[in-house]
Amino acid sequence: MRVVLTGANQPRYDCRVKYPDAVAESVSTSHLVIDDEEIFKAHEGGKLSVQLSSPLDTQRALSIAYTPGVAQVSRAIAGDLSLAERYTWANRLVVVVSDGSAVLGLGDIGPAASLPVMEGKSALFKTFGGLDSIPIVLATNDPDEIVETLIRLRPTFGAVNLEDISAPRCFEIERRVIEALDCPVMHDDQHGTAIVVLAALLGATKVLDREMTSLRIVISGAGAAGVACANILLAAGIADITVLDSKGIVHTGRDDLNPFKAELAQRTNIHGLTGGMAEALAGADVFMGVSAGLVPEELIATMAPNGIVFAMSNPDPEIHPDVARKYAAVVATGRSDFPNQINNVLAFPGVFRGALDAGARRITERMKVAAAEAIFSVVGDELAVDHIVPSPLDPRVALAVAAAVAEASQVAEH
Amino acid sequence: MRVVLTGANQPRYDCRVKYPDAVAESVSTSHLVIDDEEIFKAHEGGKLSVQLSSPLDTQRALSIAYTPGVAQVSRAIAGDLSLAERYTWANRLVVVVSDGSAVLGLGDIGPAASLPVMEGKSALFKTFGGLDSIPIVLATNDPDEIVETLIRLRPTFGAVNLEDISAPRCFEIERRVIEALDCPVMHDDQHGTAIVVLAALLGATKVLDREMTSLRIVISGAGAAGVACANILLAAGIADITVLDSKGIVHTGRDDLNPFKAELAQRTNIHGLTGGMAEALAGADVFMGVSAGLVPEELIATMAPNGIVFAMSNPDPEIHPDVARKYAAVVATGRSDFPNQINNVLAFPGVFRGALDAGARRITERMKVAAAEAIFSVVGDELAVDHIVPSPLDPRVALAVAAAVAEASQVAEH
Repeated sequence: MRVVLTGANQPRYDCRVKYPDAVAESVSTSHLVIDDEEIFKAHEGGKLSVQLSSPLDTQRALSIAYTPGVAQVSRAIAGDLSLAERYTWANRLVVVVSDGSAVLGLGDIGPAASLPVMEGKSALFKTFGGLDSIPIVLATNDPDEIVETLIRLRPTFGAVNLEDISAPRCFEIERRVIEALDCPVMHDDQHGTAIVVLAALLGATKVLDREMTSLRIVISGAGAAGVACANILLAAGIADITVLDSKGIVHTGRDDLNPFKAELAQRTNIHGLTGGMAEALAGADVFMGVSAGLVPEELIATMAPNGIVFAMSNPDPEIHPDVARKYAAVVATGRSDFPNQINNVLAFPGVFRGALDAGARRITERMKVAAAEAIFSVVGDELAVDHIVPSPLDPRVALAVAAAVAEASQVAEH
Repeated sequence: MRVVLTGANQPRYDCRVKYPDAVAESVSTSHLVIDDEEIFKAHEGGKLSVQLSSPLDTQRALSIAYTPGVAQVSRAIAGDLSLAERYTWANRLVVVVSDGSAVLGLGDIGPAASLPVMEGKSALFKTFGGLDSIPIVLATNDPDEIVETLIRLRPTFGAVNLEDISAPRCFEIERRVIEALDCPVMHDDQHGTAIVVLAALLGATKVLDREMTSLRIVISGAGAAGVACANILLAAGIADITVLDSKGIVHTGRDDLNPFKAELAQRTNIHGLTGGMAEALAGADVFMGVSAGLVPEELIATMAPNGIVFAMSNPDPEIHPDVARKYAAVVATGRSDFPNQINNVLAFPGVFRGALDAGARRITERMKVAAAEAIFSVVGDELAVDHIVPSPLDPRVALAVAAAVAEASQVAEH
């Protein structure tokens, strides 16, 4: 039981050192208490298995699925490569690819330690998208090698979900993998997050009867998720977006920005703000947290009335939702034990399912926006300040997203 | 139904153009008649699927298998990499790796067309070895790139079954992958074949009450299987082995041999034979066919009495078993529709299962010989001239092989 003991030595969440005592108590006594023993037991031997489409228990079945029968299928594919889509599993197989460089809130823990997360992702693809999926964890952080490896593996799979790859490397890697492969590719930490954030914003503005495009939005975090959220919100017609990284507001006057942030500075911050969270939040309508940094209550208090707070950092929201609710009209987090859970699982199973169903070779911006609108549409009449997005367990979501994405894939991207 | 039609245009076996008419009739009217439509239908969508170890249908299950629970497991592995063996599926996952360069008797048909075979292999690993397995087909034939790719993928899997890679590249690739990775690696076309051949020879000599080490053996084929068979038979103490390639007997006087065949010439052919099949077979005790070349009846007729013929080429045996039986006391093929089917599936599931059960980092010569002896041992009292090996469907085989291989792995290799 050495493992359980190792795990038990770690606090479940270290929220107590960050939140005031009363708030920490509320977080750690939330209704979903799961101890380490149960978690580790559930991971024994991993979370996936491979099964046969039909059993190989007779000589006849063996002769069909293996020699000599299989030779007919291989020969047919060799003569017409397009038949591989029909007669192998590869065409609808999603590989969840990571180098383990930015795993959850744990950082660069390496490929082997990232594997339980990737197995979980594959399990979610199956559960919600009905797609077979396998984890591929790579013992290299080099973008050239990652791209090259996926090119070599190309006949093995039908789509690529890049996962937990650190910024800014993730931007280059995704761009190059998309260029190199003729199949759907998406870095979920960017676009999955952006899709669900847009869906949640559609829900929040609807329930508050506010105009989305006139909102003043602050995004805390300029990594994979922050950049993608800014992009999808800009694409949705929102003009007033201010992004912060760990050094403060991203603006064109800074000389410490990487090329991706420098480019972002050009397209955001229309008021030319400088400074930090205090300067950004004063009078803002929306706070979106996609970093691990906490936001003090007194700054949230400076936001405009009737505001929106998405404190999505996991496991510790940037501000405790009970505190945020004192100032904001709608509050959401990434956690399952509070209302309004903004979780990528609302997006990625349906996005890939729709792209593969439609035979799409790219996941376009139009498909992403369609996914967000589909997630929002599922909420329907249940829309309320504590129900701006559907439950991650709602089986209607992936179906709606897949249909919307498949339809959007038929429209040419400009 | 374009695919079925494509397939239907191919003769099932082209044995009619090779065998005399009467023999061809016997082959094509064998009891296992499977038409293309049934074969292609069974391959629709591929032969594998991924399943969850336990369902993700509740918020609690999601919180255990994915965030936040999974973070505990990833954190524990990051602190102690050996825990990946226990808490992921990778440690017992066999990747079936091919570049599609030597697929069945079809040759270099490429990775996409090889995938149905690799899916079948993964299905066999599951069915007979109880091991999860996924196909990895590579869009490169370059040995450097294949080895490098597997090194990068290392955290993804627990063992490597190399498959259908052409000779002589397969020798170098296997050697380098074994050197590079700290896990079981085996090129099945070499060693799986060698193991079942040795098992069958143990059965044949036992039923004939002959001394194995005094046999004069002819191997037709100096590719992956031929070289590996020669090696395991030499290791088993058999001194008199003659190997032929498409140009004739492999001997030290030839200047057209690749380095692997040249090295083989040094260790075989103790009589210094030259020439072709006629010179090799005259007076031989055993014929082993692991190439696609036919052997005329009149040459089989020149073998010594009480002989053994393993005509293992698929789908067309080097000589029809009914013909061979006129001259040899024991006849085996690779086909399921004749007695004595020598099939790698008797070996590889148990070999990998035993190696992984024992935590072995190498598949040693000792483990291969132990596997052969275990296959032979399962035949037991059922031993007969038409039952020298167990049925490929016999569930006892993989268990016996796994136990023997695991035990043999505990003995240090010299």
